[in-house]
Amino acid sequence: MGKIIIGKNGSKKEVITRKASSLFRKKGFTATSMRDIAEAIGVEAPSLYNHIESKNEILKDICFRIAKMFTDHLREVELCRKSNLEKIENIIRFHISMMIDEFESVYISDHEWKHLREPFLTDFTNQRRNYRSRLAAILQKGIDNKQINAVNPYVAVLIILSALSGIEGWQKSGKKIDAKLLEENMIKLLIEGLRNK
Amino acid sequence: MGKIIIGKNGSKKEVITRKASSLFRKKGFTATSMRDIAEAIGVEAPSLYNHIESKNEILKDICFRIAKMFTDHLREVELCRKSNLEKIENIIRFHISMMIDEFESVYISDHEWKHLREPFLTDFTNQRRNYRSRLAAILQKGIDNKQINAVNPYVAVLIILSALSGIEGWQKSGKKIDAKLLEENMIKLLIEGLRNK
Repeated sequence: MGKIIIGKNGSKKEVITRKASSLFRKKGFTATSMRDIAEAIGVEAPSLYNHIESKNEILKDICFRIAKMFTDHLREVELCRKSNLEKIENIIRFHISMMIDEFESVYISDHEWKHLREPFLTDFTNQRRNYRSRLAAILQKGIDNKQINAVNPYVAVLIILSALSGIEGWQKSGKKIDAKLLEENMIKLLIEGLRNK
Repeated sequence: MGKIIIGKNGSKKEVITRKASSLFRKKGFTATSMRDIAEAIGVEAPSLYNHIESKNEILKDICFRIAKMFTDHLREVELCRKSNLEKIENIIRFHISMMIDEFESVYISDHEWKHLREPFLTDFTNQRRNYRSRLAAILQKGIDNKQINAVNPYVAVLIILSALSGIEGWQKSGKKIDAKLLEENMIKLLIEGLRNK
């Protein structure tokens, strides 16, 4: 058991967050203890408390970092001069890239956010609801100008986000097909399903 | 605490399975004990063992009953004289009806099957894999005869089944929209995404 070793690219807190993420995903947040995290890093549990308050703080950091990335991207898309269908395509592509590049954190923020403590739980729940409403609003605009199929935007958001979560299956089953092929096929299926012909 | 009361429509085992299902879905299989099941029914735990061996037996019954329903339906669809795209539509509609009429059992068989014991675990895993392959085979035939968009069938199965699991969100969030509207919108989006134009 030694000191927390810091890699080239990170503060001590980043090292802790990385190891904790991996445990949260494999064992689940509830089943992971501070002792487990300390063991994975190779330090004594008490020394962790010099850097973080609790495993809840790590969960909060992960969830809010990911939420910010999605929200910042959505803001950009909302402001850009593209058609509504192109905006949806852009958002789907961003989700796919996040599910590939930030899989561990996205998985945790999707599956373990219910363990957040107040006031963060309410804040995060509102962010999720807000994000879905803004997606639905883009879809509605596209439906209004006849570019997007007349579907219920709530159902469309449900289908798109659920389909994207299917990438978890691809990650877990050993990425049997190429990431680029996965992306292009998802876009083809979902965007052609939405396009008004 | 009394005897197990039998409803009009069920054997003692069916009553137990129904109560256990509800607990497995709410608390998860691991967190549910035989004592919890007995309490929910209103009997002493030991009297449960007159009817079932273990909670694993209940899980096995649920998973295999649901798997049989899906497999029987798929067999029927495979043998019918419809186009491959119509077959896929038929299968999607069956999944939606199962997610609505048999939600609790479908949810458990989807989320808790990993707790099955051998030889059932291997059997069930094979059935899942087999089901997906047969869906992919129908898609491939439709792609070959140019009725279905040239997508990777593995990705298409992933998207369809993940999108369908989104109905869990609809169930949990209080079914804000009508079931029929949900079904028609899912069909429109997924089938139009697959249709080769």
